[in-house]
Amino acid sequence: MPRSLVIAAAQLGPVQRAHTREQVVQRMLVLLRDAAAMGAELVVFPELCLTTFFPRWLIEDEAELDAYYETRMPGPATQALFDEAKRLGVGLHLGYAELQHEGDRKRRFNAAMLVERDGRVASIYRKVHLPGHAEPEPWRRFQHLEKRYFEPGPGFTAVRAFGGVVGVAICNDRRWSETYRVLGLQGVELVLIGYNTPVHNPPAPEHDRLGDFHNHLVMQAGAYQNGTWVVGVAKAGVEEGCEMIGGSCIIAPTGEVVALCSTRDDELAVARCDLDLCNSYKRSVFDFAKHRQPHAYGLIVSRTGAIPPEQDRGSKS
Amino acid sequence: MPRSLVIAAAQLGPVQRAHTREQVVQRMLVLLRDAAAMGAELVVFPELCLTTFFPRWLIEDEAELDAYYETRMPGPATQALFDEAKRLGVGLHLGYAELQHEGDRKRRFNAAMLVERDGRVASIYRKVHLPGHAEPEPWRRFQHLEKRYFEPGPGFTAVRAFGGVVGVAICNDRRWSETYRVLGLQGVELVLIGYNTPVHNPPAPEHDRLGDFHNHLVMQAGAYQNGTWVVGVAKAGVEEGCEMIGGSCIIAPTGEVVALCSTRDDELAVARCDLDLCNSYKRSVFDFAKHRQPHAYGLIVSRTGAIPPEQDRGSKS
Repeated sequence: MPRSLVIAAAQLGPVQRAHTREQVVQRMLVLLRDAAAMGAELVVFPELCLTTFFPRWLIEDEAELDAYYETRMPGPATQALFDEAKRLGVGLHLGYAELQHEGDRKRRFNAAMLVERDGRVASIYRKVHLPGHAEPEPWRRFQHLEKRYFEPGPGFTAVRAFGGVVGVAICNDRRWSETYRVLGLQGVELVLIGYNTPVHNPPAPEHDRLGDFHNHLVMQAGAYQNGTWVVGVAKAGVEEGCEMIGGSCIIAPTGEVVALCSTRDDELAVARCDLDLCNSYKRSVFDFAKHRQPHAYGLIVSRTGAIPPEQDRGSKS
Repeated sequence: MPRSLVIAAAQLGPVQRAHTREQVVQRMLVLLRDAAAMGAELVVFPELCLTTFFPRWLIEDEAELDAYYETRMPGPATQALFDEAKRLGVGLHLGYAELQHEGDRKRRFNAAMLVERDGRVASIYRKVHLPGHAEPEPWRRFQHLEKRYFEPGPGFTAVRAFGGVVGVAICNDRRWSETYRVLGLQGVELVLIGYNTPVHNPPAPEHDRLGDFHNHLVMQAGAYQNGTWVVGVAKAGVEEGCEMIGGSCIIAPTGEVVALCSTRDDELAVARCDLDLCNSYKRSVFDFAKHRQPHAYGLIVSRTGAIPPEQDRGSKS
């Protein structure tokens, strides 16, 4: 049985504060139909795609904050998107802010839902690596309060979907090699990653010129080192005065970018992805069972931060 | 105190079977002196640099096999190199096959020694990830019997040397993200990596066209994701009819290649490496203590090979 799948990375241009979910869903429907017309069987939308990237502001009014979250998915504004995808027989990935009510307690996650071609929910992933900060830092031109507005998810779980093994990660997760490896150890063949990445990094502005390079570098390495397809999808462009990178792309298990967006607006990058290409890597250079050496990896789970060697340890091997 | 260091990646062209260690050391001395004249304070030679890459053959005569190993370092053929490095005040990294006698037992490692500018041994590293196979596979045009001729080393230990924190890895180690991370968790600022990498990969010849790309991809990602300098050094060119990649380079903590060899022969790539540049990454996007989530990384140490999810796990998140 052939396991090739046409996938569309559905990049979104900016979503301003005044834009409603209904307006965004109209744009997503245009991309969805365009993608379906190009044969896409899975359309991948970015992280937090239904609203503007609200962690850039300190929002102290709880009702105002809550309004950025979804309490169910699909909800009133997104039902049309789910219905149309099912009608077209196209799978769907989209990122959103999730608000769970547990008794009196509110739990907030940066989440992404993966929906099969028949409308069945294949997985809900909750972002593990939350960048930025929890307390407002007034010196920044924009805040990045993900650590304030979300709690970290439990982990990375690959599922069987689309005829293969599929994993999801979100934005900052893609910079950590552990993300791909934990999925790789579950045999992942396709990793879907939405992101909102400002060009300007206030604590390290010297990185700004390298945003596109770093974005591709980490996803290409993750793809190659685990023998998996990776689809990275941006919400891009200038949102409320904050410029975000684009570069949405589809990366083969070779590590090569095989489809790429070249604007910072609504745009598709489409490729036919043969999931069996993964085997070329998983069964040779990255045959984990044959070549990995977990006895040497202990620090990865036993230590969170870096601890340099003692001064006197350099004296002998 | 400035912590910048001029480093030379000292690529070697092929070493044929008939070449003696003394002949190779003469070539290394030329590179060493050239590097010193360019201000180098550390000269990095490749993996198994003193002989031809002998794991490409099945060697059944034990004396013939033993002749490829060093029982002490420096030995008679290498003393001149160590002496000259010390005289010049230049540090040294070189890879060699190590034979240890433990009573009647022989232990064999693919090793690399790091020597400080004053001649002191800073570290001996023993390769963890041994590629290839243990049993001869006659269908291959060249064998790759590292799993037969070496045992895996105990792990990755960074040491204080050259005014910073230095780690060593060897060849296939560089393809595994765990290598850089375990060193990164020790605060590594400079990773030295020698390699002998055939262009042709018999079990997966479809990778051959990508050898240079993969070589740089993994080292660039490892550098960026851990905020460290990486120096990769090849034994390159056509050795006994087997073509090996070059591409020796110095990579900044930005992930950028800042110096590169362009031949497959004896050649230097030299750069001034400011170890303090690492801080720009270690204190922001890769501030491990602030951002890593070890609760989600358990599979990396608990599982060696990949186990795909159950078929029925795809039904619900």
